[in-house]
Order: sequence, then structure tokens, then C-alpha cells
Amino acid sequence: MTDGAFGPGSTIGILGGGQLGRMMAIAAGELGLNCHIYCPDADSPAFDVSAAHFCAAYDDEAALAEFAAGVDVITYEFENVPDKTAEILSAARDVFPDPKILTTTQDRLFEKRFLKSAGLSIAPFAEIDRPEDLAAAIASIGTPAVLKTRRLGYDGKGQTVLDHSTPLEEAFDTIGNAPAVLEAMVPLDKEISVIAARGRTGETLVYDIAENVHENHILSTTRVPARISGPMEAEARAIGEKIAIAFDYVGILAVELFVVNNQLLVNEIAPRVHNSGHWTQDGCLVSQFEQHIRAVAGWPLAGQTRHSDVIMTNLLGDETDNWQTLAAKPGAHVHIYGKAEARQGRKMGHINQIFPLGKAP
Amino acid sequence: MTDGAFGPGSTIGILGGGQLGRMMAIAAGELGLNCHIYCPDADSPAFDVSAAHFCAAYDDEAALAEFAAGVDVITYEFENVPDKTAEILSAARDVFPDPKILTTTQDRLFEKRFLKSAGLSIAPFAEIDRPEDLAAAIASIGTPAVLKTRRLGYDGKGQTVLDHSTPLEEAFDTIGNAPAVLEAMVPLDKEISVIAARGRTGETLVYDIAENVHENHILSTTRVPARISGPMEAEARAIGEKIAIAFDYVGILAVELFVVNNQLLVNEIAPRVHNSGHWTQDGCLVSQFEQHIRAVAGWPLAGQTRHSDVIMTNLLGDETDNWQTLAAKPGAHVHIYGKAEARQGRKMGHINQIFPLGKAP
Repeated sequence: MTDGAFGPGSTIGILGGGQLGRMMAIAAGELGLNCHIYCPDADSPAFDVSAAHFCAAYDDEAALAEFAAGVDVITYEFENVPDKTAEILSAARDVFPDPKILTTTQDRLFEKRFLKSAGLSIAPFAEIDRPEDLAAAIASIGTPAVLKTRRLGYDGKGQTVLDHSTPLEEAFDTIGNAPAVLEAMVPLDKEISVIAARGRTGETLVYDIAENVHENHILSTTRVPARISGPMEAEARAIGEKIAIAFDYVGILAVELFVVNNQLLVNEIAPRVHNSGHWTQDGCLVSQFEQHIRAVAGWPLAGQTRHSDVIMTNLLGDETDNWQTLAAKPGAHVHIYGKAEARQGRKMGHINQIFPLGKAP
Repeated sequence: MTDGAFGPGSTIGILGGGQLGRMMAIAAGELGLNCHIYCPDADSPAFDVSAAHFCAAYDDEAALAEFAAGVDVITYEFENVPDKTAEILSAARDVFPDPKILTTTQDRLFEKRFLKSAGLSIAPFAEIDRPEDLAAAIASIGTPAVLKTRRLGYDGKGQTVLDHSTPLEEAFDTIGNAPAVLEAMVPLDKEISVIAARGRTGETLVYDIAENVHENHILSTTRVPARISGPMEAEARAIGEKIAIAFDYVGILAVELFVVNNQLLVNEIAPRVHNSGHWTQDGCLVSQFEQHIRAVAGWPLAGQTRHSDVIMTNLLGDETDNWQTLAAKPGAHVHIYGKAEARQGRKMGHINQIFPLGKAP
């Protein structure tokens, strides 16, 4: 709607009120920007650090219109914004990153096709529309393989591992009989991730590459720097930039990469700030959250220079009950999201342990 | 009212809604704490980053009672909390730092007496209740000297410099005919400041000593580390600790010191987070704002280790109009307070330029 940048005193609308929205709102606050949060969940942690909030369903057209009218520009903290919601908001205000990108990233099949067309390496995969597709796919890809729903999967939900003895009908039942993809389960040496930022004028930067460890399909720790070679670090950066440019992206984009036999395969893209970028809060002068807000509001990006090595550890479920011990840990900075209910496996906070450059264990 | 610590999900009440309150609220948000702000000014920048706010006069007893009832513990961002206000709040909730300390720090004469009784060095001074007191005071202290109101002076307001030719009646008029102190104007080599923190269990720490430059009586830049000797740094730290302990203090305390002929004289105490501690946001893992919130909420203090050298520069009046250039400055992090009106000399933001340890110019 406008090419102008939104300076101090402007208002950013954020769709989604979880911890990512909360940390974006806090970062915006440091720049003199206000945030309005839109989220259907009454217990949204982002509400408590924002100038205003709308607690309404994502298909409540009147609420969406009122929300859009009160802000200068809109962004989101998650990738499952319904098409219709994005359409209503885009008609009223600029929405960054462009919701059209979500059409690709919300669907694993479309995302894989996009990655292939961009010339990037990914693990072998096959489209599975019906259980009958599975036998041929397995014959081509082999086992073990992972069957994943095309849409709405995260943190290991909506997926199941197949080996040569798995009854195929049962596997399709397990993931809810939804359209799926079968992916070869590659013997990965490690997972790394790229946090890239792209501004509204096309400037692009990539934070130092991070190395991730998952437990039970949920990110457990992120370590920066990743223990990879210089050429691989450069290749990972180039992949992040390539995707950001291909999408004509605005904001922070995360790319998860598998290291397999000294090669990089793209696992998936998250069109938003990402858990594997939380280390930037304490390792860099400007975090991924502020960088995202800068991009969306049309500010110049900041340098991504890192002043410390960092190991980020997620705090799940009841782990933040232990906040007094966590807060006293030397050399560490605890971040807690203020969520009311600590369900098992739920992300409740994280802790960044910092080390002088080159000194992470 | 309680000895308990207030964990994530608790609510901190903050009296005062300026930039210090805003940055405290943002810091609290990172710990999963909520803030309620109480401030008579409708344009308070802290309102926009907090869960709730009360826009009411400091003597509105009903509003104060409602504010207190909704929070777990109370703190403030400024030193001029009226006695009666503090009394009403203290009856309902713990208030940290103890408002009794304000009786001392709100009055330059009481503060100087306190400092002397604590065995600390200060510049020669005399009590001035009436213009007739001035002649004898000048005979004893000499000129140049500074006549300052005992109460409510800040950023050079309520003070005037006297030399041997100043008409004394006129000087007393200039500062508003209020009870005052006359201070010897010492030939200072530099001004440094101490940012000390003390927790509710008595643990005390001091950030690295910073060096300040004022222009037109307003802080212009703060540089860390201060360019002083090791023994002087140790002495400055000891002064900060001594005052914190003497006050049985809880929270962040700032002490401005003059370096005169290689000796330290205490200039003044601020019983709150302080402009000369803003560098901690980008030079340390945990800022003065978070440290203050930790102390007030009964959390353990965090380490004050510094990872970078910092030069902090205040942005006054219309300087933040230039936000696009400021935001693009390499190696710097801009902080903007979101104030609606940029009056001349008003603090609108600050910028922290960081350097690797030992590399500040």
C-alpha cells in the first residue's frame, strides 16, 4: 500500500501471540515502535508486552479489518496464516513477508518443488496422495523413510517413520489419512540452520550458521558457531540468500539444512523468526527479532556481527519451574515467555550461555 | 509484606512511565514478568509495552490503591515519589528500593550529610536557607561555587554558578528562592559513575565503572571502561557497595563521582536505574534494567560481566528524526523511547556503539 518506512511511533501489527510474537514486540519496543497483536488465544504471551491486542478468530472479518485499520504494516509469527485472512489484511495494509510465500511453505510438496526449481539439493521424496502410492514410493526411495503430512506438521507432529516391515495402510492412518510426502530418511551427520534477513530495499544478510540438536523431534540446543568447514559455512549462507532472493522476501527467514556425507540438503524453510535464531539475542548486537521488525517497518538492517559464542537450550514443559536456578547460572541469560500453562514438551523459555569468541566447548 | 520471590507470571508495578520505566518493563517481559505502569502523563512511553497502566495523579488515593492491589511488588523509575504516595503503596505491597531512602536522596543537604556520615569524600558545601547565608558560605568555600536547590533539581535545572562578582540576592532569585546548598565548584578531571545492584538477600555487585561527559548539564556520552587506574576503579566500586549496604538497598543504584586531583568525590546518588548505565544493554549479558527487576522481584542477580567496550551517546530533541541514519550505523545499536513530542534537550533515545574488549577509541 505504501513504499514509506515506518519510524518511531508507528504501529506494527503482529498476527499470532506466542513467544515469537512476544519477542518481536519487545524488540519493536526498543526502537520506539508500538505493536498490536492479533491472536485467538486469550492466554497469548505477546498481549502483555504490547500496546493493544485483538483476541479474535482468524476468520473474524470485522476484527481483522479493525486490527488492520489500527496499524501501519503487518507481519506474523507463524506460517499457518489462513489464505483468506492474509487476503483481507493485504487489502488494507502491506503484509511482510508476502503471504503468497506461505502458499509454498505451508505445503511440504510445494516447498520441495520450489527448492528443486531453485536448484537446491534436497533428500529424495515422493508425493503420496493415497495409501496405494506408498508401495511404489518406497520401491524408489527405500527405507527407512519418513511419511509426513503436506500441511500443518511441526515439532514431529503429523509424521511417522517407515521401515521395510511397516504396514503401509497403518502408516497412512497414523498421519491422519492426509495428503503427504514420503522423504528418504538420510543418515545425517548434523543439522544446521541459516537465519537470513532481507530488507524492503533488497539488502540481504545472513547470521553466522548455527548447529542444532533435536530431542523427540523438538529443538533442544543450538550452538554458534556450527562445527562445519569454512566452505560449507559459505555454501549454507549462499543457500539462505538464494531462497530469500527467490521469494523476494522481507523479514527473517530460517532454513534448516542437513549435513549428509559432507553435502548440504535443505530440510525445510520457516518464513519467520525461528527458534534456532534465539541465540542472536545474546550473541549479537541486534537480534533476529529486531532485524525482522526493521525489515518489516522499512528500516535499514543492522549488522549481524557476533560478539560471543552461544549455546542456546530450550526450556520445555516444567523446566522453567526451576527459574531461580536458571537465572543464577553464570554466563547465561534466561528468557521466559510468561505462558500460563506448562504442558509437557511446550516451549516455555530458553537460556543462552555465552562464551568469548572461539571458546564455546 | 512478603519475603517470597515473584516468578514468571507475576506482576511488577512501576511508578513513572518515562523511558526508564519503559526499558524496565521491556526487561521484565524477557523474564516472563508482567508490568503495570502508574503515571499521570497520558503520553507515557512505558504504557505501550506493558500489560496495564493507570493514568492518574500521584495523589489519587483510589487509583493508587487499585494499582497496588493488582501487582505483586512495586518499584519506581524516578526519585521524586511524594512521601504520601510511597506511604499508601507501602501499606499494600513491598516497595523497592525502600522509599525511606528517598527522604535522603530527594534533598541535597540530607544526601550530603548521609555521605559524610558514611565516611565518603564530597566537595565542600554549606547550607543556604536565606540569601543572608550566602556571604558567609562563600567566605568559607570560595568561588566559583554552585548554588543548587535542595529539592527537585535535575539536568542542570534549579542551579546557578556564582563567581566573586555575582550579586547574591540575584543568585537566590535565580534558583527560585528555595532552600539550597552551596557547593564548591571543584576543578574536575572527569566524571565517572558507578552502577551498583543489590538483591533482596543482600548480594551486591557493581558493573564496570563508566566515564561520563556532560554538555549543557545533560549527560552526553558514557564510555566503558572509564579511563582510570585500577586502584581508582576498585575505590569507585567500593563506594558503590558501601552506599548500597548503608541504605540496605534493593535494586539498581547509581553514584556519580568526580575525579579531582586523582581523588574521588561523590557528586550525587540516584536511587534508580540511570542514564549512565544504558551501556549495559549492549555491553553485558544482563542490563541494569533486568538486574533491577531481578532485585525487586527477589530473583538472583545475574553476573555483570562485560563482553564489549561501549560508548553510549544520548539522542536529544530532534536527533532521533535522523533514525534511519542512526539505525544503519555499523557496530551500533539504537534505542528509541517512542516519545510523542521532541522538545529541545529532551531525552528521546540513545545509541550504544560497541567495540571488542580493550578496543574503544
